[in-house]
Amino acid sequence: MHNFDFYNRTRIVFGEGTIARLGELAQPLGKKALLVYGKGSIKSNGVYDQVVESLNAAGIEFVEFSGVKPNPTLTHTREGIALAKAEKVDMIIAVGGGSVLDESKAIAAGAVSDADVWDFFLGKAEVDTALPVLTVLTLAATGSEMNGGLVVTNEETHEKLGMIKEPLQPIASILDPSTTYSVNAAYTAYSSVDAICHLLESYLTHSDDFAPLQDRYVESIVKTIIEVTDTILESPDNYQARAIMMWAATMAWNGTAPSGVGPFILPHHFIGHSMSALYDTPHGASLSIMLPAWMTWRAAQDPSKIAQFAKTVFDIDEADPAEAARLGIAEFEGWCRKIGSPTTLSAANIPLEGGPEAIAANAAPLRHMWGLPDYDEALILEILKPAIR
Amino acid sequence: MHNFDFYNRTRIVFGEGTIARLGELAQPLGKKALLVYGKGSIKSNGVYDQVVESLNAAGIEFVEFSGVKPNPTLTHTREGIALAKAEKVDMIIAVGGGSVLDESKAIAAGAVSDADVWDFFLGKAEVDTALPVLTVLTLAATGSEMNGGLVVTNEETHEKLGMIKEPLQPIASILDPSTTYSVNAAYTAYSSVDAICHLLESYLTHSDDFAPLQDRYVESIVKTIIEVTDTILESPDNYQARAIMMWAATMAWNGTAPSGVGPFILPHHFIGHSMSALYDTPHGASLSIMLPAWMTWRAAQDPSKIAQFAKTVFDIDEADPAEAARLGIAEFEGWCRKIGSPTTLSAANIPLEGGPEAIAANAAPLRHMWGLPDYDEALILEILKPAIR
Repeated sequence: MHNFDFYNRTRIVFGEGTIARLGELAQPLGKKALLVYGKGSIKSNGVYDQVVESLNAAGIEFVEFSGVKPNPTLTHTREGIALAKAEKVDMIIAVGGGSVLDESKAIAAGAVSDADVWDFFLGKAEVDTALPVLTVLTLAATGSEMNGGLVVTNEETHEKLGMIKEPLQPIASILDPSTTYSVNAAYTAYSSVDAICHLLESYLTHSDDFAPLQDRYVESIVKTIIEVTDTILESPDNYQARAIMMWAATMAWNGTAPSGVGPFILPHHFIGHSMSALYDTPHGASLSIMLPAWMTWRAAQDPSKIAQFAKTVFDIDEADPAEAARLGIAEFEGWCRKIGSPTTLSAANIPLEGGPEAIAANAAPLRHMWGLPDYDEALILEILKPAIR
Repeated sequence: MHNFDFYNRTRIVFGEGTIARLGELAQPLGKKALLVYGKGSIKSNGVYDQVVESLNAAGIEFVEFSGVKPNPTLTHTREGIALAKAEKVDMIIAVGGGSVLDESKAIAAGAVSDADVWDFFLGKAEVDTALPVLTVLTLAATGSEMNGGLVVTNEETHEKLGMIKEPLQPIASILDPSTTYSVNAAYTAYSSVDAICHLLESYLTHSDDFAPLQDRYVESIVKTIIEVTDTILESPDNYQARAIMMWAATMAWNGTAPSGVGPFILPHHFIGHSMSALYDTPHGASLSIMLPAWMTWRAAQDPSKIAQFAKTVFDIDEADPAEAARLGIAEFEGWCRKIGSPTTLSAANIPLEGGPEAIAANAAPLRHMWGLPDYDEALILEILKPAIR
């Protein structure tokens, strides 16, 4: 076990009907909020009305800022920062999925700084402080509701960059599973893959040879996500399954899984982000392409950890590690396809001619920033090979 | 899944050599600390010197308050509060195991209040605020380092009472596994049983019939604690096993396991506390007596959850739930005995004549406070029956 620091201050308020508590959570933070949301789906599913009612009842004034895109953009983020400054808000309230939460965190950092917000992502400025962020989550996927992480895309440079900063951890997040009933089948699938990927990246790439606690934590949550995703796709209004999924996605990326396992890498997010930046591939879809491809490449070097995954998550009873790994990858890829998340470039409408090269050329320059110095264009193309069909 | 709130602000600083960071953690909290510890074992194992060195380097002044007993007493707690008030300290620094941490939290609450500290335990006064608490943990057992819970014994009335309060959550806790090398075999065993009991109480008594995430979380940690305890007893200086045990005990009682499972009860702690109050039985030893006894009683009513425990933790392959439960209880009891934690009253030097009745008479009056209205003397005696030998 390696030395580590763990800190997670986010209060989670979980369950049906809890949006009514938003106002009470906002009151200690000030009087005026920037209310950030996306393209308006919260107006059709009743979430917006619940938010407004709670804020009004608590006497919290708010200014609306809508239009956050999936893969939130730098331009829109800058507009939000300008509005937050002009309106002198005390807090940011994010209502939506990971994209809305991520952009809200960037606005929270930018609103109290003279630096351009992109400089935070480039490491040219430090996030020492930020406006407090509250969130009302409507998609169980990214874990952004209980961590200080965020990802924003610079549309001019086609760079999708992320950072994790303590001052950007939400003060509190409201998780009402019934808000996710309206998430369609495709995004339900992408979300499950996203949460699984958060767990598997540390699990498959950490360097600790004795991490039974952390490994079992990951295996338990992955197994549970697979089960409840199947249930949700059969009956999208199943509260229990939606609830377990929502808490599982939060637990998947709140800092617990990698505690003490030492350094690990995020190759799937690294390459997947370039797919999203170039082809607007949904984040989870890019990860279901990456995971089987990367595991296949990795198993050729050392199949042991993937064999453990195959055994514990899919109950594969096969002594030979290479064969166990092969069967486990096939099982996982088959499950992704079954739930409707692509595992090949063509299934995600990424051109087979030129697409892989473009992805590699987009990602490779960022490899040092991601702590992946070996991931040059040639290696990225090699890893992508099983998905080029 | 039930609605729930989760909040845990404690920063964990984990690993060998991290006591050197105590001063840095103390600096934002003020200039003067009450340094609370036990009977002085920290002076023989080098922990005290590391603490003093770090505080001196950071310019933190401190007043010492030692002599905390296992099962900390109300009288000593009141002395600590008087000292904290007289010396006008800004923070409490607890160096030790669960007893030192628990008493330190009580001092932190009492030091900023005019109420008598026992009134907090009796529910006659509310803990609205407290001095900030830092901890340096030297025993992996109670989870007190990452929760707002504490237990104190009133020696006059022989009452051992607890409470869980948000303002008493430590600001930060330093967990250096090498400080636990000197924990002897008996206390290593008791500690493992304590952590397992924290996990099993919610697992075995919650009312949710669909909690795959929470159940797997518990099963994973219990299985891991059993494995590493065996390793530690064979080689007490095994850093990896001590480290996994330390983080496991923290994860066992930091609020994660019972999140969303709804109401649950603590029958083992409830009855076990009376054993400690009357016979000075070490806390973990009382729990290894209680767990097999209570599970036997419970299995006669409904064996299903205990059968699940038997299957997942001990790999017991038996279709009949009652038989699976019986085998699982036997396996667990055998393991407790093997590691040296008692499973009968006589093994804990509690008199078979009169002892059970005294325990029942001590516990029963507190049953309403514990949310266990059915646990009258007759029921407690019935539950204790398998252990009366």
